[in-house]
Amino acid sequence: MRAIAVEPGGGEPAIVEKPKPEPGPGEPLVRTLRVGVDGTDREVIEGHHGEAPDGEDHLVLGHEAVGVVEDANGTDLEAGTVVVPTVRRPPDGETAYFERGEPDMAPDGEYVERGIVGAHGFMAEYFTSPAEYLVTIPGELAHLGFLVEPISITEKALEHARASRSAFEWEPESALVLGNGSLGLITLAMFEGTPGYDRTYCLGRRDRPDPTIAFIEKLGSTYIDSRETPVPEIPETYEAVDFVYEATGYARHAFETIEALAPNGVGALLGVPDDRAFEIDGGTLHREFVLHNKALVGSVNSNRGHFEAAVETLAALPEWVTDELVTGVFDLESVGRAFAGDDTTIKTAIEFGDV
Amino acid sequence: MRAIAVEPGGGEPAIVEKPKPEPGPGEPLVRTLRVGVDGTDREVIEGHHGEAPDGEDHLVLGHEAVGVVEDANGTDLEAGTVVVPTVRRPPDGETAYFERGEPDMAPDGEYVERGIVGAHGFMAEYFTSPAEYLVTIPGELAHLGFLVEPISITEKALEHARASRSAFEWEPESALVLGNGSLGLITLAMFEGTPGYDRTYCLGRRDRPDPTIAFIEKLGSTYIDSRETPVPEIPETYEAVDFVYEATGYARHAFETIEALAPNGVGALLGVPDDRAFEIDGGTLHREFVLHNKALVGSVNSNRGHFEAAVETLAALPEWVTDELVTGVFDLESVGRAFAGDDTTIKTAIEFGDV
Repeated sequence: MRAIAVEPGGGEPAIVEKPKPEPGPGEPLVRTLRVGVDGTDREVIEGHHGEAPDGEDHLVLGHEAVGVVEDANGTDLEAGTVVVPTVRRPPDGETAYFERGEPDMAPDGEYVERGIVGAHGFMAEYFTSPAEYLVTIPGELAHLGFLVEPISITEKALEHARASRSAFEWEPESALVLGNGSLGLITLAMFEGTPGYDRTYCLGRRDRPDPTIAFIEKLGSTYIDSRETPVPEIPETYEAVDFVYEATGYARHAFETIEALAPNGVGALLGVPDDRAFEIDGGTLHREFVLHNKALVGSVNSNRGHFEAAVETLAALPEWVTDELVTGVFDLESVGRAFAGDDTTIKTAIEFGDV
Repeated sequence: MRAIAVEPGGGEPAIVEKPKPEPGPGEPLVRTLRVGVDGTDREVIEGHHGEAPDGEDHLVLGHEAVGVVEDANGTDLEAGTVVVPTVRRPPDGETAYFERGEPDMAPDGEYVERGIVGAHGFMAEYFTSPAEYLVTIPGELAHLGFLVEPISITEKALEHARASRSAFEWEPESALVLGNGSLGLITLAMFEGTPGYDRTYCLGRRDRPDPTIAFIEKLGSTYIDSRETPVPEIPETYEAVDFVYEATGYARHAFETIEALAPNGVGALLGVPDDRAFEIDGGTLHREFVLHNKALVGSVNSNRGHFEAAVETLAALPEWVTDELVTGVFDLESVGRAFAGDDTTIKTAIEFGDV
């Protein structure tokens, strides 16, 4: 079968021939339908994040997949069921974090991530996975199933952010998304469906006309150009916000988030930056943190519960939202275009089989 | 009656003569027993924090008080009951945060703080307060009642920190207190009575012999000298910890906390630093935050529920702990000594009336 693999840090992804996987006990064989492309794939390609499985020189990419069960192999799933795989797997048998359903909280060394760290991903015509890591989705969502994983990332971040404010009555009215990449825009669309977020903002650095700015404004949200209004000036120019969702990987934004928050607000950090030293007014930021009861919560990966919540969220998104978010679905031969992208690209996926 | 007042930023506190307060409707008259001295008082004296009531040039100090009801004035309290007052009051009638019992979450302008910001404190022979802001404590704790307020500060910080980790199964085993001032040491003693914190550490910068180091070690905790082991080196030299409690007001520590935390850990920030710019390796810190699901929570003030929890905590502290924490109780004429302090001082209080 054909798969898309990369030597991390060693060049562009390419089509490789791999044997069709043999499912082990408890593992259905899944025929891949579509696999999304995201910033993490680009970090893996560039060698900034992730690694090939032990003893191998290449990594099959892909962690945002949807497929259809071809052979249930004695599991509770049925052939023809549409499924989305979760991403983390235990490296050697079960570990405590997997047993309690919280692989997303496992520390380094206690997990591998398919398509990212130490395990091949889903960009192949077939994949296998223990049935417990396959989340069933309605057949009519099959063409959009590759959005379940990124939505689940936000479900987790929102859950952890809300938890951090659960010791008091927190009624957020405003939210700011830092970053107009696909994850930022999906999250912004999710806020539009969440009670309480009356006013939302999305920060980017693009000139009009631009499809992401058009998307932001069609949602009824406000676009903030970071070249005109740096993050620390947002409270004065717009308003101090109750919730910040950082999806840029730009480290300055992680700390500027403290200044953008209203009292009792929380910032969820999701970007994965490289090393970068810079000066901060640490005294002011520290004082802001304390005197106004602010919080910052880092969030990585997601668990089965977040995937299940994401399926509901995806089903509730207006059709125009997913139509405009997904700017390209490419067949295997056009893999280069799926990864390339330009200013008209929001979210792309690769199609491995007929939906 | 006599009171201890200061012109914020204008010199040392002094004894002043004030009229005995006239209780309004719903306000008992309380005869003051003891009032604790803490770092916030020093910040107010130096003019870094707080302000006198509108239209006045001086502020009566004191926010860590215990007293005895002298005249219940028709309220549900009884004469002779020992009470501890909470600190925040609504500036003009009730506000939403006070109505819901969360004045500690009120933003600037929606509260005054007795003895700190905009309202006279409790360092006077008598004070009045609406009964709803007086927390009853057992008579046998009267001599230590001034510790209820600082303990309540930690109760709140611990509640908010635990809340931030409530979206998953969090079982902290280790805790690090940054700062060996009185609040840090009280908190360290509280950890010794909390299930789960098997290993605790306390950071300071003192030479032996020193009463705070002796106290730390008598608790069974480990003293870390920050001159030998800076915070970022604690994981390698000792261990990465599940919980950090920052009570130094040293802004670098707020950000170094991220490095000291184990995966899934949380840092509670309580210090109130001045402005101070410095360089950080922001990329590494941001990445640590995200990839290891870390959190930072700022916490200020406390509400009635935290005071009530603090009364229980105080009652459960071993006698030697409070004996060694309270290094001096001074009468009104020795007010200078109560505020002075040296390396043998941990916690002092001023006695206004016989306990």
